[in-house]
Amino acid sequence: MAQPRTIALDAMGGDHGPGVVIPGAALSLERYPDQSFIFFGNEAEIAPLLDASPALAARARVVHTAQVVAMDEKPSQALRRGKGSSMWLALEAVQKGEAHAAISAGNTGALMAMSKLILRPMPGIERPAIAALWPTITAECIVLDVGANIGATARQLTDFALMGAAMARALFHVERPSVGLLNVGVEEIKGAEEVKEAHALLKGAGELPLDYRGFIEGDEIGQGKVDVVVVEGFAGNIALKTAEGTARQIGQYLKDAMMRTTLSRLGALLAKGGFRVLKEKMDPRRVNGGTFLGLNGIAVKSHGGTDALGFASAVDLGYEMAESGLLERLASDLEAFHHRLGSVSPASN
Amino acid sequence: MAQPRTIALDAMGGDHGPGVVIPGAALSLERYPDQSFIFFGNEAEIAPLLDASPALAARARVVHTAQVVAMDEKPSQALRRGKGSSMWLALEAVQKGEAHAAISAGNTGALMAMSKLILRPMPGIERPAIAALWPTITAECIVLDVGANIGATARQLTDFALMGAAMARALFHVERPSVGLLNVGVEEIKGAEEVKEAHALLKGAGELPLDYRGFIEGDEIGQGKVDVVVVEGFAGNIALKTAEGTARQIGQYLKDAMMRTTLSRLGALLAKGGFRVLKEKMDPRRVNGGTFLGLNGIAVKSHGGTDALGFASAVDLGYEMAESGLLERLASDLEAFHHRLGSVSPASN
Repeated sequence: MAQPRTIALDAMGGDHGPGVVIPGAALSLERYPDQSFIFFGNEAEIAPLLDASPALAARARVVHTAQVVAMDEKPSQALRRGKGSSMWLALEAVQKGEAHAAISAGNTGALMAMSKLILRPMPGIERPAIAALWPTITAECIVLDVGANIGATARQLTDFALMGAAMARALFHVERPSVGLLNVGVEEIKGAEEVKEAHALLKGAGELPLDYRGFIEGDEIGQGKVDVVVVEGFAGNIALKTAEGTARQIGQYLKDAMMRTTLSRLGALLAKGGFRVLKEKMDPRRVNGGTFLGLNGIAVKSHGGTDALGFASAVDLGYEMAESGLLERLASDLEAFHHRLGSVSPASN
Repeated sequence: MAQPRTIALDAMGGDHGPGVVIPGAALSLERYPDQSFIFFGNEAEIAPLLDASPALAARARVVHTAQVVAMDEKPSQALRRGKGSSMWLALEAVQKGEAHAAISAGNTGALMAMSKLILRPMPGIERPAIAALWPTITAECIVLDVGANIGATARQLTDFALMGAAMARALFHVERPSVGLLNVGVEEIKGAEEVKEAHALLKGAGELPLDYRGFIEGDEIGQGKVDVVVVEGFAGNIALKTAEGTARQIGQYLKDAMMRTTLSRLGALLAKGGFRVLKEKMDPRRVNGGTFLGLNGIAVKSHGGTDALGFASAVDLGYEMAESGLLERLASDLEAFHHRLGSVSPASN
């Protein structure tokens, strides 16, 4: 069994492949020097990049494969044809215990399908979820599911709560992360029965490894009201994309407003230190990486179009999660919770 | 029958009641001087405010009622006890043809329930929707449903498309507004069958009074990619609230960033004209007002906590929609569409 510090990298994933993956890993290694890496992909492309980064080369090995999952390949196609691809091999390294996290900037749908197939859902988990790190006024929170599935039963939502709490514990170092269920505010509205049922389950479940805070609304995510926001994948994906779009939109407004007059241009110039801080705050690369939760292994998806800085964030995330022993703790939390809900997890032993 | 310029106002609704409703109506009258108003509420409170605004008083009458729907009343309660309240009477004025639009800053759930009961859904409409005006980089778009109901069938989503297009035609003065269905991007994801079916219906329906553009994602709403964004009410409400929250969050980042150093504070001072423009762009009062679509009459909900400027926007909205003959056109569009779908609307004649 490898140390929980070996990261498997799909070197060919994303719009830029090794040109971003290798320098990204090098950046992450500066922050966490005890990492080792296995790069899966075209050795001829990887080797010269590694040569340029001796510190990284000293802690890396390369497993050659010429097979690559295309960015526009359909998940079902990728499953049929992707065996032996750089993405497949990275996930397999985690499954075999040779690495503790796999990182890919490749095709999201394919990565999700392969992750499920290779890493398998944890005992008792019906549905893995994709968790996103979401910047807030105070720090960051975790939102899940942001698009692994559409719709979720009450039971699946409560599993998301435990999965998100485990991730928050690993990343934010709080023992009992606060959790909210995303809901709409209007009272007595018909529907969303699953959300109401999940609320009842979480309230009634007795001692939980999280601090359940009840319902929250969309405008409270960014306020940092809770560490973990639970929602089914359709609304979660739309919320995430809408927040990204709104941030870009306001960035555009701001730019236009500052270019309006000579005075405002001068002011913007003087305030450019402030604007730089703002830009950093809003930089999507800082929180790059969606994580597949609920599988027997850690798989992190980086944005396909990201640069080395963004890819490094995704590597950091995989490392921090592997390091924290998140999966072992989550497995036991889930088992205890399912047991208490009266349905012993089928694979418990 | 009144001219399509008489607006019925729930003078007691919202956090501030007549203190915001009367000056708000006065502001809207400056923009649209051919309006008349009927104020429903406590005459003793309304009269002195009208006295202060002679131009408004000349075009207004007051219908006294002491009954008010409380902001925290449950919709079912409001329905039982709210008959004769200022909210009820305003809606009834529309139903009787004495006014062409009702505006209230009161309890959303109660207003929705009462609107449905008093104005009744249009022939063939299973579900009314709440439409919101959403600021975009280019101008504004309409998003619906933002919370009248949770979930929607394919047929209901296509009705939303027609309803939103009718509103866009009235407000944006385009004959064939562009319409997108909000969806998540991942291919082959399970679920959202209704969205896919609605897509097929809209594509296959032949000549429509709108320009159907297919799926759009959450980050494209604010880019102004389409005039009308169609989504079921749970995800729609969460998207709207998330965008509002993100805008506030970035406003906070910006403020903090500008206060960081003496230089940035000085810069911000010089650029304050630019910041004012930005603030106006982001001002939620500019697009205040959710509209209930799909009823036999126009009912506009203003934010409860808004000021006179915000309330005036809601009055403008009601006026513009009444003026445009939106409902008559929508009724015939819906009938033609339902007919083409093979299910003649039950009340067609």
